Amino acid sequence: MLIVQKYGGTSVGTLERIDNVANRVAKARDEGKDLVVVVSAMSGETNKLIEYAHYFTKHPAKKEMDMLLSSGERVTAALLSIALQAKGYEAVAMTGRQAGIVTDDLHTYARIESIDPTAMREAIDEGKIVIVAGFQGVNKEGRVTTLGRGGSDLTAVAIAGALHADQCEIYSDVDGIYTTDPRIEPKAKKLDTISYDEMLEMSSLGAKVLQNRSVELAKKLGVKLYARSSFSDNEGTLITEETNSMEEVLVSGVVLDKNQARVTLRGVTDRPGIAAEIFNKLAEANINVDMIIQNVGTDGSTNLGFTVPQSELDNAKNVMENFNHDIEGMDYDENVCKVSVVGVGMKSHSGVAAKAFSTLADNNINIQMISTSEIKVSMIIDEKYGELAVRSLHDAYELDK
Amino acid sequence: MLIVQKYGGTSVGTLERIDNVANRVAKARDEGKDLVVVVSAMSGETNKLIEYAHYFTKHPAKKEMDMLLSSGERVTAALLSIALQAKGYEAVAMTGRQAGIVTDDLHTYARIESIDPTAMREAIDEGKIVIVAGFQGVNKEGRVTTLGRGGSDLTAVAIAGALHADQCEIYSDVDGIYTTDPRIEPKAKKLDTISYDEMLEMSSLGAKVLQNRSVELAKKLGVKLYARSSFSDNEGTLITEETNSMEEVLVSGVVLDKNQARVTLRGVTDRPGIAAEIFNKLAEANINVDMIIQNVGTDGSTNLGFTVPQSELDNAKNVMENFNHDIEGMDYDENVCKVSVVGVGMKSHSGVAAKAFSTLADNNINIQMISTSEIKVSMIIDEKYGELAVRSLHDAYELDK
Repeated sequence: MLIVQKYGGTSVGTLERIDNVANRVAKARDEGKDLVVVVSAMSGETNKLIEYAHYFTKHPAKKEMDMLLSSGERVTAALLSIALQAKGYEAVAMTGRQAGIVTDDLHTYARIESIDPTAMREAIDEGKIVIVAGFQGVNKEGRVTTLGRGGSDLTAVAIAGALHADQCEIYSDVDGIYTTDPRIEPKAKKLDTISYDEMLEMSSLGAKVLQNRSVELAKKLGVKLYARSSFSDNEGTLITEETNSMEEVLVSGVVLDKNQARVTLRGVTDRPGIAAEIFNKLAEANINVDMIIQNVGTDGSTNLGFTVPQSELDNAKNVMENFNHDIEGMDYDENVCKVSVVGVGMKSHSGVAAKAFSTLADNNINIQMISTSEIKVSMIIDEKYGELAVRSLHDAYELDK
Repeated sequence: MLIVQKYGGTSVGTLERIDNVANRVAKARDEGKDLVVVVSAMSGETNKLIEYAHYFTKHPAKKEMDMLLSSGERVTAALLSIALQAKGYEAVAMTGRQAGIVTDDLHTYARIESIDPTAMREAIDEGKIVIVAGFQGVNKEGRVTTLGRGGSDLTAVAIAGALHADQCEIYSDVDGIYTTDPRIEPKAKKLDTISYDEMLEMSSLGAKVLQNRSVELAKKLGVKLYARSSFSDNEGTLITEETNSMEEVLVSGVVLDKNQARVTLRGVTDRPGIAAEIFNKLAEANINVDMIIQNVGTDGSTNLGFTVPQSELDNAKNVMENFNHDIEGMDYDENVCKVSVVGVGMKSHSGVAAKAFSTLADNNINIQMISTSEIKVSMIIDEKYGELAVRSLHDAYELDK
């Protein structure tokens, strides 16, 4: 049985914790498993290095940043290998290059193009535990690249795919995926299983356990993902294909995203291409638009609403000034949040969305915007009602049962 | 004019100091020079990483250590490149691999086998300042290796040789080579020039400015070396071939090495091979023997003396127990030091050594052991007289003139 494990920055944040990780890896080895272990930089290291670079300029060259930032994971990989060897286990540390990870040229947010697993496979066949520095690869010219935030998860999933590993275990300080944020709703329950698609909705909506790129890649490669804690022996949550038994579960979780600002454009001239123009300009300014809602107009104009991260609202306002002539009025609101109900069962049960709306109505929470997909319903509401909405919805769908 | 500069750990020990180095490099660039800049890890970084590894085991695997330790120089190289770019200069950071440095397989103390300067040359031709992470290369299998302590100096000298640079400037916190340690003798004078051979004697004897391997390589490749301070604009010391004018200088410097312990073996059986046996056993135990002195015996036995670093005296005692049957008595003394007088003029002027002996005699300093080479006289004396001996000899040879 071949397992790929990945330990995040908090799990390897101190030498004691690296030792703890070594013990976990050793235990899995003792159980007869073949292992590839992907590690992040010790927590704080990457941010420290970014601060160092920003001492000189706010816009350091990306090639240089990749050389700088890739060092953190190398350190952890070498240390974990040393820790395992000290316990009498055969281990070998590899950089992204040595693990055969080739990416495109997009420094600081490169995409993995291919993995040549020969070196890893040889080491496994020699009985060694392979430790890989996550978050990095090399481009075709052999220059080191990094994969962006969450890149170590991506490394682990891609390696699991390339080696046809039996499963990929992502370790962090959270012991799985919950029906909602336990800090908001203490009755939140850990899920045993969740589908890739639900996980994608959960993570993009604010659950920070797994980044979307990794879940997308796991889905594409058919990698069985486990989200687990490195600080407990809990089973964690399995992220996998939808199964029949899942369909019976209507709703898997409720997610709150407080980092939202709402923009409403009233009386937008209803000429072809106006929406495309607006969102192109926003994209050019690197503004991440999240929800978009357009109502059909009655008098040759239309109302258009969208949300952006709060930090990007000022930029969005600047962009919108270009459209003064096309728009009657603009409305901005930073004091909003997004509450979403996620579940694969939803698509075949129309009553799920209706229950969300009535639950909020029962609590006198006004819904400002609604957006639905096959497996989620998202609602923009006044920020101050966010936690109340989460608890009410969690109750309404009986997620604590 | 092509210059290779190397900045040591203290010179790049903080972000402010890296900025200072960037200003120095920029100034040289403004003067029209082509530049390759080799950097060490920020001071303290390498030791921190070694301590990290030692948390797990006193004997970490050397391959892992190389992956671990090479990260420090990469960080500095990336940061210096970023700093230069921030000042509007074109710069590119390279790892040892990217700079084309290929070493043998001896992890943690690898030797440079070849340098393919193509990438550096191309970058220089494109008008870029090349920043190279010192202390590292790759072996033929592409695995990262490190060159051991002082490895960044070696990187700089080897690159200067491969690129046929006009000179190689080694920057540290010391502004050159002095006639003796200024902390012992305030009248010590900075030397404008010193020969490779004298420098070799000076550095192996305790002057820590330049490591021997670098000076040897510079001599072999004919690289003109400058030892300079990164904190001043002083000219520093040029280390180069002997010139005629040098011969007039009898003595260049006086060096004190306090890290010495003396071992004296009395009545060693005078059979063939006994000395070889003793020093082979010491070598097998990784004990660095420095001075060796043997007196011809009169009665079928001989007296043998040698010195080792103080930290290795206990190991040496253990080794010597193997020879109990061959040796009448053994004598150990940790409270000794070595004072050496170095100078190329010495070999043609026999009076130089005599003056050293009489100077110490005039100060009632007993000489326990003497060893001479073509360009130096070393004397083992009681440790407490070390500083007095240095000052007296400095005076006797009029080195302050």
